[in-house]
Amino acid sequence: MKIGVFDSGVGGLTVLKAIRERFPSVDLLYLGDTARVPYGDKSSQTVIRYSLECAEFLYNEGVDLIVVACNTASSYALEALREHFSLPIFGVVEPGVKRALKSTVKGRVGVIGTKATISSGSYERMFREYGVEVFQKACPLFVPLVEEGIVEGEIAKRVVEHYLKELKSSGIDTLILGCTHYPLLKPIIEEYMGKGIDVVDSAECVAKELEPIVEEVGSSSLELYFTDRSPSLDFLVDFILGKPVEYKLLSLPCKV
Amino acid sequence: MKIGVFDSGVGGLTVLKAIRERFPSVDLLYLGDTARVPYGDKSSQTVIRYSLECAEFLYNEGVDLIVVACNTASSYALEALREHFSLPIFGVVEPGVKRALKSTVKGRVGVIGTKATISSGSYERMFREYGVEVFQKACPLFVPLVEEGIVEGEIAKRVVEHYLKELKSSGIDTLILGCTHYPLLKPIIEEYMGKGIDVVDSAECVAKELEPIVEEVGSSSLELYFTDRSPSLDFLVDFILGKPVEYKLLSLPCKV
Repeated sequence: MKIGVFDSGVGGLTVLKAIRERFPSVDLLYLGDTARVPYGDKSSQTVIRYSLECAEFLYNEGVDLIVVACNTASSYALEALREHFSLPIFGVVEPGVKRALKSTVKGRVGVIGTKATISSGSYERMFREYGVEVFQKACPLFVPLVEEGIVEGEIAKRVVEHYLKELKSSGIDTLILGCTHYPLLKPIIEEYMGKGIDVVDSAECVAKELEPIVEEVGSSSLELYFTDRSPSLDFLVDFILGKPVEYKLLSLPCKV
Repeated sequence: MKIGVFDSGVGGLTVLKAIRERFPSVDLLYLGDTARVPYGDKSSQTVIRYSLECAEFLYNEGVDLIVVACNTASSYALEALREHFSLPIFGVVEPGVKRALKSTVKGRVGVIGTKATISSGSYERMFREYGVEVFQKACPLFVPLVEEGIVEGEIAKRVVEHYLKELKSSGIDTLILGCTHYPLLKPIIEEYMGKGIDVVDSAECVAKELEPIVEEVGSSSLELYFTDRSPSLDFLVDFILGKPVEYKLLSLPCKV
């Protein structure tokens, strides 16, 4: 069994890592679109087009299912992906919502993410079906902070306060980290929000979602592809996966 | 006469504006690659490929010269552009260097820009020819700060201090803002650096460079193209140009 995972960049490697931990013997294929990162401040049309191109590459490589390890792509492109490809396709939004529904007692949940994810209303729509009140906030500086390695200290604290001040006083008891970069800020977000607020990493919950469908058969291979060797790529691959891993480069859209 | 200007996004509109002010009757054509912005943390190969695609569009539209209104593209792609297109091609690096050479008394100049611009060494090489000592610093958080509209206040001040602390004590008397986004932070950068340091906006100097070549003939037309209608595009076009301006969308690379 071969699982394909794609993301706008390197953040989705956290999802890949969680999948590997849960399913040690399947084959894994990852594509990070580093030549066009970030997706989070682009239009829905562009995010859908990029997502289709990423999925097409994975499809042509013969994967059995696709995990969209990017909240922005999961928010805008899932429907288009399911229309175009006759494969099971999983996003990161729904698993996070399910986990938050288990956690919340007050029925008040906060969601933070990129501009595109928040304005897509993807989380809001799902929670509304369950009668849960949602408080949303786009936090555009969180991704560049993480990519700069500023995940603690005075600047990080002030930026966290800048974005989360209103959420903190909104009476939520659960906060979803709706972007694969945000888990790296989890410690200072938890510290700022205080006790009694469950901070949910939506990426963490995805691997569990795959259980009913994944057969533990494969050669445990791992292939990484990126669309650009950006300056911090080697460092981030090593940092997230815990060791240096070889990768290949490709251009999208693929010339057929 | 028709002048083509391209940039990775909207920042280059500040250069376009300066060109319009100096040459009121020429025709202007602008292309902002908002579907792939930013260029500043991508590899040289990718920046060169994107720049060639932008220039190709302008070339096919019949421009008489091309202005690369992006420091990253100017740093990596000028040579490739000049090889591929038999048109005069102007970057933003050289005009900034010339202006700084006039300003510096001590022969110590600072340069700030994106990761890609700084690691390209484009400014450093030029200054070295003139025996000027250069102190460089990449400031990756400045672009997202500006795009978030955070150009004053405590967060902006701390981020400015974070990046410019060493430059401040390095004995420079001139500082080049080597990125089209940075002029919006000029007031707090000047405030932090203190008196006696001349802060140079390299984009400002480009229009002057064109004088020997530009003939003031044209219909004063202005056409804007972007590769993505990103969420903040309308706001930023209006904000930089001082009024709402219609634009068209296109995909790169252009299908011929």
